Amino acid sequence: MVIAKARAVDGPDKPFRAAEIQRRDLDSHDVLIEIHYAGICHSDIHTAHGEWGPVNYPLVPGHEIAGVVAAVGPEVTKYQIGDRVGVGCMVDSCGACENCQKGEEQYCLKGNIPTYAGVDKYGEPTQGGYSTHIVVTEGFVVRIPDSIPLDAAAPLLCAGITTYSPLKHWNAGPGKKVAVVGMGGLGHMAVKIAHAMEAEVTVLSQSLSKKEDSLEFGAVNHYATKDPATFQQLAGYFDLIINTVSAPIDLNAYLSLLTLDGTLVNVGAPPEPLAVNVFSLIGHRRSFAGSLIGGIRETQEMLNFCAEHNIAPKIEVISADEIDEAYKRVLASDVKYRFVIDISTM
Amino acid sequence: MVIAKARAVDGPDKPFRAAEIQRRDLDSHDVLIEIHYAGICHSDIHTAHGEWGPVNYPLVPGHEIAGVVAAVGPEVTKYQIGDRVGVGCMVDSCGACENCQKGEEQYCLKGNIPTYAGVDKYGEPTQGGYSTHIVVTEGFVVRIPDSIPLDAAAPLLCAGITTYSPLKHWNAGPGKKVAVVGMGGLGHMAVKIAHAMEAEVTVLSQSLSKKEDSLEFGAVNHYATKDPATFQQLAGYFDLIINTVSAPIDLNAYLSLLTLDGTLVNVGAPPEPLAVNVFSLIGHRRSFAGSLIGGIRETQEMLNFCAEHNIAPKIEVISADEIDEAYKRVLASDVKYRFVIDISTM
Repeated sequence: MVIAKARAVDGPDKPFRAAEIQRRDLDSHDVLIEIHYAGICHSDIHTAHGEWGPVNYPLVPGHEIAGVVAAVGPEVTKYQIGDRVGVGCMVDSCGACENCQKGEEQYCLKGNIPTYAGVDKYGEPTQGGYSTHIVVTEGFVVRIPDSIPLDAAAPLLCAGITTYSPLKHWNAGPGKKVAVVGMGGLGHMAVKIAHAMEAEVTVLSQSLSKKEDSLEFGAVNHYATKDPATFQQLAGYFDLIINTVSAPIDLNAYLSLLTLDGTLVNVGAPPEPLAVNVFSLIGHRRSFAGSLIGGIRETQEMLNFCAEHNIAPKIEVISADEIDEAYKRVLASDVKYRFVIDISTM
Repeated sequence: MVIAKARAVDGPDKPFRAAEIQRRDLDSHDVLIEIHYAGICHSDIHTAHGEWGPVNYPLVPGHEIAGVVAAVGPEVTKYQIGDRVGVGCMVDSCGACENCQKGEEQYCLKGNIPTYAGVDKYGEPTQGGYSTHIVVTEGFVVRIPDSIPLDAAAPLLCAGITTYSPLKHWNAGPGKKVAVVGMGGLGHMAVKIAHAMEAEVTVLSQSLSKKEDSLEFGAVNHYATKDPATFQQLAGYFDLIINTVSAPIDLNAYLSLLTLDGTLVNVGAPPEPLAVNVFSLIGHRRSFAGSLIGGIRETQEMLNFCAEHNIAPKIEVISADEIDEAYKRVLASDVKYRFVIDISTM
């Protein structure tokens, strides 16, 4: 049993406090990871605040985990001590259903086991990456290529794969016009990845304040969605729209920007249903779709892709004492573009 | 100029009356068709009743037209006098935009010219198939294979192509599980066509009253949607759902019946927006899409497919004096499964 130092919350309105959590003894295929960095995802905040349903507090969030293998179970074959590895939004799945068999563990028919706020196969609550160590079965651990620094690698495990997967699935590539709605942690990764896939990328952001960054990250243009002219100018233009905004949006306005057979993919989900004008879909055989992170094989593929194309998130590294402040700044959209906790400060 | 006999309505609440309408002199590529049969589509009723926006009355509906070529313009090459031909929901389009160039004239970026309640390129209102003759440019006329009787051919021009096109586009075929929501004019064609494409077809209808017909048309099963157990039993089952119901439905309940990467396609559009729970989409990378009739090339392909597979709608032939009564029966879902007007009674 490893005792890990961690930062935990005790309730929806409580601040983070130092805590100690137990990590299980290594089962035959388990890997013990010494965590170096953990990204702060908006999902962490929703969950910590109890906005996505009841939570068993104390809770240790964190599903953008980068570190080094510290020990391995007796039958582990994929990793050795010292390997640079990552863990994302899930730590297990049934492995047997047709979706798991396809390598789409995120869509496990029995439900994947989330990295925190879940219950693992031993019946224990899962606790996330705001901690010094974690134990994960090797099948849910990915290798971080040497060229990606561990701090920059962390956000790839959620923000990276969540945008890579739909871009790949809906064939972003040469000749395709892709719009990214929202320039936050996910949005800025979507821009970089879609650009590396050689699609033409446009950012649709509330204002023009991040235009310079959009262009630097590879977008050919950046429009303000608070300007109604944007929607007239871009009507019927895009093959694919990746919506990274979890708040409700005027979906029909965005659907009108799609060309024939275009798809708008939500990677975030507002709690409220969205109203779809069916004529918006029928008129140009458009689709409205959703996508959830990516499978483990695809997560590894994404990391390799990012290494090959020199893609990394733009991050701000903070100490463990700054998590509460970072949450406030995320909620105020005051982060460019991802906070990453330096776990050595824990 | 040809004077055609027709049946017209003068307002949203008015009955049909005998009328005479003028059909234009043949332009170089025009075909004069002597109409033998015209199907009654639910769209005719929506339009005649002014439910889809303002209408310039008097209106002659009808976009499921089957007849025989009576004359051709000097440069017509596709058809000769005596050919058995059909006309569907559109009679022209710009021909120049990228969608027209792809053969997807229904999605013409300038808007296709509908067979009735539209304005043609001469600035004249278009009038539909409840009439003895129509003049249409040859590019929007299709050939009816000899083996399909003209009365049965008529509904293929809308109900047939509207269901064939999405079934083809979303790859209904061997190994695919397809659900058809609604067993009306469109629904029963969807069942027959999907079955002929070798998909496994299931009907989702309000009650079990049409179960025998569903099985006869090729479905392997028929479930009542008013029974909540249906939605539990079929959760995550279908690759493709074709929703032929134009009234609002509980979309999220139907989305839950889709498997990973499944698509629900609306071919009808309720005037009210539908509420989509985005989690329904994200959880299994599902899509909600829309589809509008089909292009001219695809309409010909559908007719040939129906001939090859001996597919025809189940129809009830009525006289021109029975249109008002037929409308009432369509609204009461009291038709198996399409009314077709015998134009010789006009």
